[in-house]
Amino acid sequence: MVHGKKFCFDPIGIIHSPHAQPEGMPIQPGGAAGVRGTVELFPEYLEGLADLAGFSRIILIYVFDRSEGFDLAVTPFLDTTRRGVFATRAPRRPVPIGISTVRLLDLEENRIIVEDIDICDETPLLDIKPYVPLFDAYPEEKAGWLEEKEEMVITFRADGRFCQK
Amino acid sequence: MVHGKKFCFDPIGIIHSPHAQPEGMPIQPGGAAGVRGTVELFPEYLEGLADLAGFSRIILIYVFDRSEGFDLAVTPFLDTTRRGVFATRAPRRPVPIGISTVRLLDLEENRIIVEDIDICDETPLLDIKPYVPLFDAYPEEKAGWLEEKEEMVITFRADGRFCQK
Repeated sequence: MVHGKKFCFDPIGIIHSPHAQPEGMPIQPGGAAGVRGTVELFPEYLEGLADLAGFSRIILIYVFDRSEGFDLAVTPFLDTTRRGVFATRAPRRPVPIGISTVRLLDLEENRIIVEDIDICDETPLLDIKPYVPLFDAYPEEKAGWLEEKEEMVITFRADGRFCQK
Repeated sequence: MVHGKKFCFDPIGIIHSPHAQPEGMPIQPGGAAGVRGTVELFPEYLEGLADLAGFSRIILIYVFDRSEGFDLAVTPFLDTTRRGVFATRAPRRPVPIGISTVRLLDLEENRIIVEDIDICDETPLLDIKPYVPLFDAYPEEKAGWLEEKEEMVITFRADGRFCQK
């Protein structure tokens, strides 16, 4: 019985970034080009980083821990129309989990230096997966209401609408 | 203090697929071309699906609930060498969360018909995100040890090595 069952997870590390608060942040890696951050893996998981250096991008899975609650219809950063939350990447979601594909620059023991980071400082990290173009890259797909707005992401910066301290 | 803090989530739905058990399954959407499944969203979240129909792919985030425990070094399906778990997409991971980018075929109320599904039947669903090429598609990235093995994914089928009932 899945309905009503809870799944609990222990973070495996912390994401450090220059984005101390959600306001003013880039809203996707595309808007964070060149912004560096550090993924700190808790030392007990260090052995799991073997062989990661050969990948040029990694997928970070993390908790939107600065978001509280959710609405099923939201006005996203890039729009003025209310949209279903599952048709957006808004952080206030029923399950507040985020994914970002960032550039892997360097590995220093249990610290991974990354670029294009659009994640708040001190964010709890749940998983690291290698980005594999054959599994993850579909450049020709239709992006719905975002189709005409995708390019805005490069210059747009977040306001506080999805965040509560 | 992130270390030692637990994050608990309630699934938002159930993923139905023809893959009743992990053995014999495709190991990535690329190996599941044309395989159809249904994402059943619990009815209380229905309003969140508005505007999703315009996207041709969606990202499903789910729990690898048939996996128990983890090893930091694993021999992945496509290899004979042990690799760090974070350099693989193996389901037995410290935080057993999976992501799959599947094709969106149709929406029927709270049910989403999808294709290219590489997920076990009755898997707990945590989130649905729209796939946005500008955020998610990086076709030219280096895929480390998987670089020469990517194509194998199309024909490979899982054995039971990562699964316990």
